[in-house]
Amino acid sequence: MDSARYPFVKGHGTENDFVLLPDPDGTLDLDPVLVRAICDRRAGIGADGVIRVVPTAAVPGHQDVAGSAPWFMDYRNADGSLAQMCGNGARVFARFLVDAGWQQPGRFAFLTRAGIRTADLAADGDVSVEMGPVRIVGVSTAELAGRTFTGTVADVGNPHLVCRVAPGLRLEGLDLSAAPGHDPIVFPDGVNVEFVDDSAGEVRMRVFERGVGETRSCGTGTVAVAAEQLHRAGRTSGRVLVRVPGGAVTVTLEAAVGSDGGTPEAGFGGAVLTGPAVLVASGELRPAALRSPADTGAAAGSRA
Amino acid sequence: MDSARYPFVKGHGTENDFVLLPDPDGTLDLDPVLVRAICDRRAGIGADGVIRVVPTAAVPGHQDVAGSAPWFMDYRNADGSLAQMCGNGARVFARFLVDAGWQQPGRFAFLTRAGIRTADLAADGDVSVEMGPVRIVGVSTAELAGRTFTGTVADVGNPHLVCRVAPGLRLEGLDLSAAPGHDPIVFPDGVNVEFVDDSAGEVRMRVFERGVGETRSCGTGTVAVAAEQLHRAGRTSGRVLVRVPGGAVTVTLEAAVGSDGGTPEAGFGGAVLTGPAVLVASGELRPAALRSPADTGAAAGSRA
Repeated sequence: MDSARYPFVKGHGTENDFVLLPDPDGTLDLDPVLVRAICDRRAGIGADGVIRVVPTAAVPGHQDVAGSAPWFMDYRNADGSLAQMCGNGARVFARFLVDAGWQQPGRFAFLTRAGIRTADLAADGDVSVEMGPVRIVGVSTAELAGRTFTGTVADVGNPHLVCRVAPGLRLEGLDLSAAPGHDPIVFPDGVNVEFVDDSAGEVRMRVFERGVGETRSCGTGTVAVAAEQLHRAGRTSGRVLVRVPGGAVTVTLEAAVGSDGGTPEAGFGGAVLTGPAVLVASGELRPAALRSPADTGAAAGSRA
Repeated sequence: MDSARYPFVKGHGTENDFVLLPDPDGTLDLDPVLVRAICDRRAGIGADGVIRVVPTAAVPGHQDVAGSAPWFMDYRNADGSLAQMCGNGARVFARFLVDAGWQQPGRFAFLTRAGIRTADLAADGDVSVEMGPVRIVGVSTAELAGRTFTGTVADVGNPHLVCRVAPGLRLEGLDLSAAPGHDPIVFPDGVNVEFVDDSAGEVRMRVFERGVGETRSCGTGTVAVAAEQLHRAGRTSGRVLVRVPGGAVTVTLEAAVGSDGGTPEAGFGGAVLTGPAVLVASGELRPAALRSPADTGAAAGSRA
């Protein structure tokens, strides 16, 4: 029986939760089957995603930025697929680096599949992460329970469709247990869909993340929603508090250089996502116990 | 900020999952708020219940059995309420005791709120737990989505209602997202409801546990279902394989002494629940990070 044990930390940002796997030697072999097993909420530890924490110096092709961005955030969705970036995951990742003593509090850069990003740990406990530019791309539709929602297409490094719900339709009443239908021409690799109600003086959203399902929060989704709010108001920069089922975050959007605020290719030059990031547990997971007999080909493997 | 950390182990039996809190000194103060926070699947670790593992010698009023049953299984449901017994929890508890080196493999006794029980760890990895007698009490009904199910009332130390679904009704199609309605006269403290399909040559069930919701498995529920199967067939003992969403367990039922097999107070003298029990992770949880600001009255408390 395989008795290997992997160190892990579990944390969340506004209840978007992650299992972090510290990998200081860059040797951890993280396949999709293991990611799915870790994220299984009953047979595993349970999470929206897995973040391998690996030195940039150990990432082929990126050693040149190891000096300025010493740690790479190797993010995987709960279904085992790779993802470019995850805003709440990045905030929890930054919290972990400081908690582990691998970074000092304050500002520091780190590497993601979407490029180098900056984190900032404030004295009040909030963690901010730079999310990169936002493009407002156009309009598309989502289908949910036979109803068509028209939304704004936003590119935050990954694709989003921001749908404001019609007055009188309760956000809480939407059934997000299955993926909303989307236009496969506009979104050939799927799309994250946000449903927004801003009718009561605050911006509230629910989100269906591609490859995951409904989550309690989605960092890039809150950025897309804030960008849609400001864009619709004709503003080229600003700050928006976005309430998600798991709490609230603040999104700060900066003007794009040369932006004229009104073209179809409108957008924002940069975004910062700010909110709580908490580590709730740490320890060792037992990969042999996480794999089902079907995965390992040995019944004993699931019974550590 | 409270920097206390509590050792924990996470495990499951047929995907009925538990956070175990080893408490060898019997000093852990486990209140319902903390139990709910630990069991929260996004802001906490996530589990169907919490099991404090405490020496019987540290349990007031039970020191006299500490020699024969050295460990007490202090079980709590995910909603923070106390429970008498949990079959799959007991199997994971037994697995933990052996894994920790606190018991030798083989047969040993332990204390629960339902009395002293015996566990047996087989060489093949399965764990058996003695579940005590089963009484077949009578008939009652459950309401689900406007439909009435007639079921058999079984007492396995806790109350169960075993409802066989009518031919043509798909077990997978039932909506167990909310508690089935029950007769408050028969079940003043609520009831665990099992829905059973035995039409395809095997016994399959889904379960709604009071205080928890639908779970992937329920030990006492599988015992109740097996007892109903044998009772209906006119048998006073036997063995039944019960398939649950999280896997399969075997229930062995022994004849009641003096049972006449046909009275309204029919039942079985003892039950043994057998199946896999797996530990998937261990470590330390951070109770201060698990409590929300509303619980602690201090925002910093949730941001360890």
